[in-house]
Amino acid sequence: MTELETGSPAQAVGCESYPLQVVDAWWRAANYLTVGQIYLMDNPLLTRPLAASDIKPRLLGHWGTSPALNLLWAHLNRELVRRPELALLYIAGPGHGGPAVVANAWLDGTYSELFPHVGTDEAGLRELFRQFSFPGGIPSHASPDTPGSIHEGGELGYSLVHAYGAALDNPGLTVACVVGDGEAETGTLAASWHLGKFINPETDGAVLPILNLNGYKIANPAVLARIPERELLALFEGYGYSPRIVSGGFDGEDPMVVHTALAAELDRALDDIEHIQRVARTGGPRERASWPMIILRTPKGWTGPREVDGLPVENTWRAHQVPLAQVRERDDHRAQLEEWMHSYRPEELFDRDGRLSPALASMRPRGERRMSASPVANGGAVIRPLLLPDPASRAVDVSTRRGATAEATRVLGHWLADVMRANPDNFRLFGPDETASNRLDGVYAVTAKQWEGEILATDENLAGEGKVIEILSENLVEGLLEGYLLTGRHGLTSSYEAFIQVVDSMFNQHAKWLEASARVPWRRPVASLTYLLSSHVWRQDHNGFSHQDPGFLGHVVTKSPDVTRVYLPPDANTLLVTMEHCFTTRDHINVVVAGKQPAPSFLSLEEARVHGARGISIWPWAGSEIDGLEPDVVIAAAGDVPTLEAMEAVRLLRANVPEMRVRFVNVIDLMRLQDPSQHQHGMPDTEFDAIFTTDTPIVFAFHGYPTLIHQLAYRRHNHHNLHVRGFTEHGTTTTPFDMLMLNDLDRYRLAMDAIRHVAGFAGRYGAVSQRFEDERARHRATAYRTGEDAAEVSGWEWLTEVVGPGARMGD
Amino acid sequence: MTELETGSPAQAVGCESYPLQVVDAWWRAANYLTVGQIYLMDNPLLTRPLAASDIKPRLLGHWGTSPALNLLWAHLNRELVRRPELALLYIAGPGHGGPAVVANAWLDGTYSELFPHVGTDEAGLRELFRQFSFPGGIPSHASPDTPGSIHEGGELGYSLVHAYGAALDNPGLTVACVVGDGEAETGTLAASWHLGKFINPETDGAVLPILNLNGYKIANPAVLARIPERELLALFEGYGYSPRIVSGGFDGEDPMVVHTALAAELDRALDDIEHIQRVARTGGPRERASWPMIILRTPKGWTGPREVDGLPVENTWRAHQVPLAQVRERDDHRAQLEEWMHSYRPEELFDRDGRLSPALASMRPRGERRMSASPVANGGAVIRPLLLPDPASRAVDVSTRRGATAEATRVLGHWLADVMRANPDNFRLFGPDETASNRLDGVYAVTAKQWEGEILATDENLAGEGKVIEILSENLVEGLLEGYLLTGRHGLTSSYEAFIQVVDSMFNQHAKWLEASARVPWRRPVASLTYLLSSHVWRQDHNGFSHQDPGFLGHVVTKSPDVTRVYLPPDANTLLVTMEHCFTTRDHINVVVAGKQPAPSFLSLEEARVHGARGISIWPWAGSEIDGLEPDVVIAAAGDVPTLEAMEAVRLLRANVPEMRVRFVNVIDLMRLQDPSQHQHGMPDTEFDAIFTTDTPIVFAFHGYPTLIHQLAYRRHNHHNLHVRGFTEHGTTTTPFDMLMLNDLDRYRLAMDAIRHVAGFAGRYGAVSQRFEDERARHRATAYRTGEDAAEVSGWEWLTEVVGPGARMGD
Repeated sequence: MTELETGSPAQAVGCESYPLQVVDAWWRAANYLTVGQIYLMDNPLLTRPLAASDIKPRLLGHWGTSPALNLLWAHLNRELVRRPELALLYIAGPGHGGPAVVANAWLDGTYSELFPHVGTDEAGLRELFRQFSFPGGIPSHASPDTPGSIHEGGELGYSLVHAYGAALDNPGLTVACVVGDGEAETGTLAASWHLGKFINPETDGAVLPILNLNGYKIANPAVLARIPERELLALFEGYGYSPRIVSGGFDGEDPMVVHTALAAELDRALDDIEHIQRVARTGGPRERASWPMIILRTPKGWTGPREVDGLPVENTWRAHQVPLAQVRERDDHRAQLEEWMHSYRPEELFDRDGRLSPALASMRPRGERRMSASPVANGGAVIRPLLLPDPASRAVDVSTRRGATAEATRVLGHWLADVMRANPDNFRLFGPDETASNRLDGVYAVTAKQWEGEILATDENLAGEGKVIEILSENLVEGLLEGYLLTGRHGLTSSYEAFIQVVDSMFNQHAKWLEASARVPWRRPVASLTYLLSSHVWRQDHNGFSHQDPGFLGHVVTKSPDVTRVYLPPDANTLLVTMEHCFTTRDHINVVVAGKQPAPSFLSLEEARVHGARGISIWPWAGSEIDGLEPDVVIAAAGDVPTLEAMEAVRLLRANVPEMRVRFVNVIDLMRLQDPSQHQHGMPDTEFDAIFTTDTPIVFAFHGYPTLIHQLAYRRHNHHNLHVRGFTEHGTTTTPFDMLMLNDLDRYRLAMDAIRHVAGFAGRYGAVSQRFEDERARHRATAYRTGEDAAEVSGWEWLTEVVGPGARMGD
Repeated sequence: MTELETGSPAQAVGCESYPLQVVDAWWRAANYLTVGQIYLMDNPLLTRPLAASDIKPRLLGHWGTSPALNLLWAHLNRELVRRPELALLYIAGPGHGGPAVVANAWLDGTYSELFPHVGTDEAGLRELFRQFSFPGGIPSHASPDTPGSIHEGGELGYSLVHAYGAALDNPGLTVACVVGDGEAETGTLAASWHLGKFINPETDGAVLPILNLNGYKIANPAVLARIPERELLALFEGYGYSPRIVSGGFDGEDPMVVHTALAAELDRALDDIEHIQRVARTGGPRERASWPMIILRTPKGWTGPREVDGLPVENTWRAHQVPLAQVRERDDHRAQLEEWMHSYRPEELFDRDGRLSPALASMRPRGERRMSASPVANGGAVIRPLLLPDPASRAVDVSTRRGATAEATRVLGHWLADVMRANPDNFRLFGPDETASNRLDGVYAVTAKQWEGEILATDENLAGEGKVIEILSENLVEGLLEGYLLTGRHGLTSSYEAFIQVVDSMFNQHAKWLEASARVPWRRPVASLTYLLSSHVWRQDHNGFSHQDPGFLGHVVTKSPDVTRVYLPPDANTLLVTMEHCFTTRDHINVVVAGKQPAPSFLSLEEARVHGARGISIWPWAGSEIDGLEPDVVIAAAGDVPTLEAMEAVRLLRANVPEMRVRFVNVIDLMRLQDPSQHQHGMPDTEFDAIFTTDTPIVFAFHGYPTLIHQLAYRRHNHHNLHVRGFTEHGTTTTPFDMLMLNDLDRYRLAMDAIRHVAGFAGRYGAVSQRFEDERARHRATAYRTGEDAAEVSGWEWLTEVVGPGARMGD
């Protein structure tokens, strides 16, 4: 009879039903499976001596971080059995420890349920081992096909912010977040520790951060592993936590010492979380909680080879990936691997058929309480649809006056308030201190900014509970929203356009997660991640060059067309319908660019719906073409400011070359420009040709870098006639109109382009362009002298005159 | 006689020669000039009542942060006078406080020296005020045209890492870095506090961080402003500092209280820095220093309006930008502004001609000791050229065997060691824990990784002094290098290709800094920022999809062509000459992509120089064209792996369609593809046409996303014949060759493309492509079954056979 079967109550600290020997056995089993995945393609139970042919030809995996991930899973299982009310989500920050997370999912039984070809017996183990980090198999990191995971961990630093995003509005959930000491050096992680200050213990769940100080990264010690313990504790007290250190396992120390200490600290931490929540949920005083966090200091690659070829491995950076590198080639390495794997005593853990021993199997949590089966980790399976109020009552009325002035994002803000009222625990708005600056502050009519710190009498819209979170870090904003969406909720983030590129790489990772998730049969679609980019390049004249950058759009389109969407609504009502559409979609990333400054509204809500559904339309009323005749030129615009300039350019052309027939095209869905083989929204050539013709010059006024339009449309028949104006990286502090002139996107330049490119009018280019250049020079001189933006902006009365109030414009 | 003229020794704490009344006067003067810049376009000395016409039509600027920036400048001036050995660089993290930095530069006299049109008299003041945040004037943030600044501060979060970068290898420099409480919430800033652990007090300068807790951001309280003082102190003790708090100025408290306390704490902090350095520089024990840092808690918008229109402004977020918004329109606002400006008692500070009062002027530090004239802030003025050892001794020898295997980055590492040996205090290598992983560890033959924390016996290549810095944050790595370069030194950063996009936005800001600097007459060119991207997309098969991303190249080309350069050296020797070239350039950002895996070397160093200088070449020996005849197809490649596949494709074509005449083109300098009007490196059409022809199909094997090549070459005559293969966002954990097949960049696909697109051969496409598809399927099946990368890689003996050993290949 083994220790495992008897248990030893004396060592079962604070635990009625779950002896620590069982925890240790689980840990050993998970470690065994981890090593097996890294090395073996056959002979999973070591039923015969290891042969070279049992070993994978390429050894790819990360051992170093895995023992601690396994240890924590084992102990958290024990807590789940002890606490029937506990629901845990496990986030493995060191996602490179993919084999550890997979090992535990197999031990839980979940893996075989979701992937029946990986069974619960020896054949299943063989497949479990073989597929890992193997061509046609599964990745080496935690990934979308890892049960129980919402976190890739490939790019480091986002575990804790994902954990906090998952905990928001999930009062029954506790997120155990293992933070690696390597990722703790990243900026996002270093800032994430402050997020405890945004968690409401009454209405949100809890996050239990567990910093695993295993000492080393790929090739270096970790910074936090080499500071005195008093600094370490001070740091996390300073971040607002009650930190506790569990340390052990060094130099062959008996793991039971660590088991005992860790069990006690986990008990205490979860008790403390329960206490904090109980106080808050039973009307206790509102004060910021000092949440527990655990610092687990164990050797990197603990229980692996102490030395290899005479060099220390365990507890050094050499344990990071594959400690024994030549197992296939060298008998001594292979013998060492065999000894290592036998040290876990697999015969106690698995029966002859490779099935988990009954003693261990009986200790599993049941059903959805298994961390690998956590419902929120498959957010699409628990998602509740968003209730979408009709935006009609918020729409700008253009029935009596076309061109009515509105601030598009302010209009949106009022509708967002309706959305938030209708979905009080299912929708959140995140922003880097810019919600009001982006003029979305209408939402404060129904909710507040959640803030657990001190609130003063002079503060506005701050409260212990609220559905807006603002913190001055685009990384944190992005990560919170990702965590919130991936656990089955809905939301929006807004940012200054230029600074959203702070999250380029997080965007990449989320896009890749969505791309890969779609190929995992049991993953259900989650709500799309939607960005509202405001305070955009054309109205950052006051902040200057550092704030002028439309580059995110070009970045976004590099990712899978199955995921990416880019919208440039030209006015307030099109912004409303665009956002309404985005909120109904799944598994996408929607980027919406819209200005916050007063601007004319062209379309009624109904017209906006038509335009939005088409994604691109000819606006006959804005052009000067004549039915049945080919236009002389197509003037197209994408973006609110470019649309305005393009319309003014048509006015200039009407006045100066009245016989020129101009077609006016507005693009709201940028992906329409691609062809259907490149993007689901792509237009067939026939449609593109019908709108843009095959031989008429196109003057395209674009919000962003002009090359993006060429990149999207380079396959089109009329591409050689496409002349794009946009941001050409000329910026400074000046007037809005001067910004347009600096980049040749102003009405005069667009009008000149039209004349220049149309063969029949080029002869008049000299005279007209001289006049226009004079106008431009006059505008600039006035601005530089008086500081005033001297460009006339029409009152848009002509719009009403042309189309009449109430006349349909969208078709 | 005013207080200013007499001083009051009783209050001049610890200060022999510089009464705090003078500090206060300087502060008042700077505040006055700050307010003047935000509001006035005339009447700078208030010699007559303020009229509406004195007020700028658009009020753009940030008052809130400015009083503290001014206060610190005033006090640091005092320290400069007290300490003749002190050399200070001032970094204004809240860069929005541009008018404050400019005000002090004018008070220093530097501004008028550098910009003579802004004189030292009333006319100069008028121009100083008018130009600020004004069309044709200067930006509202600290910017390249701000004297004494290396830091824009437009995008927040990079002040402290810039400060640390500036301090490295500058033992005589102290960097006073004002950190805003808003930017302190960003990820990069939160991680930057740890950088004190990398500063060697003997060989580096010092950083004195000053956290300005003014309580509010744009619309919210700052997180750090709302935590208990014990947490605040614990946090910075945890980060490793000795923090001191100076607090005051609230509710009308006499500023002299703050002056007294701040002077004392600055004295103490600078004494402590001197002490730490003295101990280290006189052979004291090696132990990590606990550097001082100061927390300055003062009201936002201190000394500005307490209330406006009945709402509190001072010490609230309402003080962030322009506290009085309607000064031009409303008499009462204008009166309030006038009262506010008079509160600084300008008549004491300036004489009737607007010149600084003699008492104040005499207190200025002299010459280069003025912070606004800090020599290191104009790095190009103090730069020492890099001594570049001949890479010949490190080159791969291909004289006897073409195709000799080498790991390109390992070869580079040995030459970098030579560079670092020759430039011991003028060149640094920064990386996010990947220097060894990227196989640059040859540098450890001459230097170490600098690390002031605990060093254990098992550690390798760690030392208190060393010219490599590794910390697991691409943001910190980037910021340190930027700070190092902007203060006149040289360096390199290496990164995994996929994760460099973590710094996209920092790249934007640095590119914009360089673009704008070039227009500032007194700024001298600094060394270029060079990225080595390794562990690239085509060899991240083991880490999987999250690590597979070549998107940085597309991001880089959005910025000014005056700044950006992209190089894709195909082998080790071309990498050497590329890097040698990059190190000689100024004011550029060079992106170099190179693999670390064993790969064939094609070119001798001499040939590599020729190829590198051309940036693009036909490699006749690699193709199969016949002199004097037009080729049937052009196969072009950019990138090391694509070059390999393209060459193998030619081999397949030789074997399967031997009569096809293939031209082989290799592109090392991607910008050559553009036309000369778009980029300085662009090729004229005649040259492009000579290489690519005007009508021959081009099969282009590209390292990155294919659309980038279309974007660069869309204007070319032969663009309609350009067929690009590259990364199409298909990735996973698999074999290297399977990665190529997944993205259709493999040799078979390239060969099939060639046959398909050449009219005369398309008839044979069916049979050959079937054979090739079978081969592909066989490769994949073998890989998925055995785990081995089954693609044959030729031994490249044929290369020697074709061209003979020693034969010239580059022309």
